[in-house]
Amino acid sequence: MSLFNELSLWSEYPIVAFDTETSGPYPLESEIVELGAVKWHQGKIIGQFQTLLKPSKPMLQDNINIHGITNEMVADAPLMKDQIVPFCEFIQDSILIAHHAPFDLGFVAIEIEKAGLVFPNNVHFCSSLISRALLHTTNHKLQTLVKELNLVGGDAHRAYDDAYACLQVFFKAAEKLDVASIEKLKAVQAKKLAWSDYSLFNKSSETIKSIVDAIQKNKTIQIVYEGGQSKNKLRPITPKGIVRNPDGDYVHAECGLDNQRKRFYISKILDIELV
Amino acid sequence: MSLFNELSLWSEYPIVAFDTETSGPYPLESEIVELGAVKWHQGKIIGQFQTLLKPSKPMLQDNINIHGITNEMVADAPLMKDQIVPFCEFIQDSILIAHHAPFDLGFVAIEIEKAGLVFPNNVHFCSSLISRALLHTTNHKLQTLVKELNLVGGDAHRAYDDAYACLQVFFKAAEKLDVASIEKLKAVQAKKLAWSDYSLFNKSSETIKSIVDAIQKNKTIQIVYEGGQSKNKLRPITPKGIVRNPDGDYVHAECGLDNQRKRFYISKILDIELV
Repeated sequence: MSLFNELSLWSEYPIVAFDTETSGPYPLESEIVELGAVKWHQGKIIGQFQTLLKPSKPMLQDNINIHGITNEMVADAPLMKDQIVPFCEFIQDSILIAHHAPFDLGFVAIEIEKAGLVFPNNVHFCSSLISRALLHTTNHKLQTLVKELNLVGGDAHRAYDDAYACLQVFFKAAEKLDVASIEKLKAVQAKKLAWSDYSLFNKSSETIKSIVDAIQKNKTIQIVYEGGQSKNKLRPITPKGIVRNPDGDYVHAECGLDNQRKRFYISKILDIELV
Repeated sequence: MSLFNELSLWSEYPIVAFDTETSGPYPLESEIVELGAVKWHQGKIIGQFQTLLKPSKPMLQDNINIHGITNEMVADAPLMKDQIVPFCEFIQDSILIAHHAPFDLGFVAIEIEKAGLVFPNNVHFCSSLISRALLHTTNHKLQTLVKELNLVGGDAHRAYDDAYACLQVFFKAAEKLDVASIEKLKAVQAKKLAWSDYSLFNKSSETIKSIVDAIQKNKTIQIVYEGGQSKNKLRPITPKGIVRNPDGDYVHAECGLDNQRKRFYISKILDIELV
């Protein structure tokens, strides 16, 4: 295997672009229903990973409408717990790329933890962040990029085709750099991405652990939040999902004060009490 | 290569025990002058790594007295910067063990960073911590353990022999467990060890970065420290070295108030100003 040297050109390493389709917006409350990845090295595609996955509960129509993967299609699909080791073996020694990587990293990280695996130390890039920094397109949605950069498209919102599109976006963006070392691409991307920052169970803060517990048990908790009208007072919330974000993790929750679904930044939660 | 699965027995993986001899007590101000490692798998020694290393400035007699490695002995030795890649290749895919691991991890981590390498994700154990938890010896110094456990000793304070002794201590301690999974050993050890927690340059806090800068330039800085008689007042200190510690990182520094060498915990440094 290869050591990752940040001073090297990215093209010295195999690249794996990957994508997930999910049963809902948040890890923990929802699951991966399709995982696709393409591995490239020195000008050639050298591997493919593609599987539908059966979630533990049926998908809602709203989510089916996004990717078109139905409950019938996944009825006989393998379980994620049986695919995570093959997937981790597939990505080993490769630079990883995903479009809106924090979303996909969040969903896969939880499976790595559930399987008892140690987080790999791959170098990670987000083709959306790198596209924003280097490409001048109308916007940086994957389908816009496919169209405006004349890339080979496929079925939008299906994991393998989106992974392949993401790989091509990365190539187009990296072309803009004179010296495309890993270090240079990291500087362009500006935000750090690492599996270990997505831990929900082992390395998390006490705040995150309490929220994870509340989500799993569908419990209401009391928080003191730095901000809003109820600043520094106890506020009941029912957490629905945690979103890991290089700009600051947040929890989506029903706020008990006005029954609205809101975003609460973890760093602004000053205190937390179980009800 | 192997994925690290915490639910597996440690004996399913290659084990590398390693040890460093150094030119002084702190990374940054001092350097590794000998690096030794032994690799074991399934009952057999399958690899050895052993090299003297030439530091960038001569060693002082106090440090030579500890390990007996003289300036003459390292005069024609290779440089650490040329040995770090071979060493990282040697340890890959292995569980790592060192006696008082935070000391050795601190010295090697800085070389990994200086070489531009991404920190590996090995599972780490400290044979001293594990010995404390499981063995009933007079104390847990490596030489005491060698004697009281009837291990194969060698030249104390020489890197390869100490690494080999450390490996045997680990075996003796692990024997005490019914199920010696990685997860179980981590629970016994209680303290977390990971390369990425030893970063001095890339992932560190602003406080650590300011201290690193002060050490490298031999500068005095003003800190506000939570504790001592000058609590919450500006105090001049001249940092000499950073010690990474699972119980809390600290800086050894000359305190300008009384010219004593003292230990200041990083988490208790409330503010820092360059002079």
